[in-house]
Amino acid sequence: MRYELYYWPSTPGRGEFVRLALEEGAADYVDVARRKGGMDEMMQLLKGPRVAQPSYAPPFLKAGRQMIGQTANILLFLGARLGLAPASEAGRLWTHQIQLTIADLVDEIHDTHHPIASGLYYEDQKPEAQRRAADFCKNRMPAYLGYFEKILDRNPRGSNYLVGARITYADLSLFEIVAGLTYAFPHNIERQARRHPHLIALHDRVKERPRIAAYLASDRRLPYDQVGIFRHYPELDA
Amino acid sequence: MRYELYYWPSTPGRGEFVRLALEEGAADYVDVARRKGGMDEMMQLLKGPRVAQPSYAPPFLKAGRQMIGQTANILLFLGARLGLAPASEAGRLWTHQIQLTIADLVDEIHDTHHPIASGLYYEDQKPEAQRRAADFCKNRMPAYLGYFEKILDRNPRGSNYLVGARITYADLSLFEIVAGLTYAFPHNIERQARRHPHLIALHDRVKERPRIAAYLASDRRLPYDQVGIFRHYPELDA
Repeated sequence: MRYELYYWPSTPGRGEFVRLALEEGAADYVDVARRKGGMDEMMQLLKGPRVAQPSYAPPFLKAGRQMIGQTANILLFLGARLGLAPASEAGRLWTHQIQLTIADLVDEIHDTHHPIASGLYYEDQKPEAQRRAADFCKNRMPAYLGYFEKILDRNPRGSNYLVGARITYADLSLFEIVAGLTYAFPHNIERQARRHPHLIALHDRVKERPRIAAYLASDRRLPYDQVGIFRHYPELDA
Repeated sequence: MRYELYYWPSTPGRGEFVRLALEEGAADYVDVARRKGGMDEMMQLLKGPRVAQPSYAPPFLKAGRQMIGQTANILLFLGARLGLAPASEAGRLWTHQIQLTIADLVDEIHDTHHPIASGLYYEDQKPEAQRRAADFCKNRMPAYLGYFEKILDRNPRGSNYLVGARITYADLSLFEIVAGLTYAFPHNIERQARRHPHLIALHDRVKERPRIAAYLASDRRLPYDQVGIFRHYPELDA
């Protein structure tokens, strides 16, 4: 099975959570919008008048004739196929629950620089962004990171992974959260790191996995930027 | 199986999406936090130091010894058990994808009155709320409602339901979206209604289902208010 990933070609964004799973799972995949003519293919599947099950937005995945949208839903689908989720239904639901909480955090990270309208530029909502980012750094980031630290701490199979004794797609996504927050809020994440040793250790552990390390060193990994979810504006990282 | 739903006892909020599925599915359930001592039970499961798989926030569901958090995840679990999701994996993923898009819309609805910080009062972020709500009514609400209208329009089994030829939990949730938006933004939803005939028809169809009609007439259905997701501030409904 060759998977087709559809996501904006210039930024890691939400597509990155899917890429990390495809890479760790050694899946055969193509990042469609990054190839010649790929953006047209993606827009056709998004906006074409005869697509029966269109996604609201990228990322979405094609697996044969099946199309699957929504980041966490794609991971639910891939987790079972790539050995990145527990075998039991209860384990899969718990992994998915963690992923959905990560998705909530991603939304809040996005809104630190776009608290008013995703259709406006950051420059058009700067004072509001400063208020929202200050609250995010003071209240929301510690609450979410503390939650994930707690999950790691209480895992009956040990604190190396979020669920059970093996890596899941949720661990890969949490790596991306720590990596992205370190880019976006270096000052604040440094202050948070000491209180979240399991979380930082998980980030470091994922980063060293052979397939992930090879991916991160390749040009398949896009750099963080100032147009995606994770952006570094020093004025928001007080 | 007696299901235990845990959610804030005074507002429909995100718990309502779960209640509607439990009611339509004729499930045996208890709304724990609404009974005497129930809030303490809920807070114990949320904050207790020995809970192995705590949720980040309500709602969560107990089914025997299993605990499931995140609204869409609870519905994924219940859909299979209550006959409110297709039998095939592809159909279940498509239903879940729609539900996750509904969840994104719910987040955006919440942020119309809380664009800066969920921990602050509305009164502390009123100018920002007016900017965000104006963008929501002009751009985001039409985009989401247009998307759901399109899904209904393109359903190869007819436009009565979002997925296939039978009701799913996603239809129930979309009913709640239309009902809640009608409370929160009566002026704007009226302008939207004409452009979304399938969506309005779905709302009306769900409302008339015997179990849903009985539920809506009961005191199990909480009224909308000014503390939940859907709030009516005339100044936000320009």
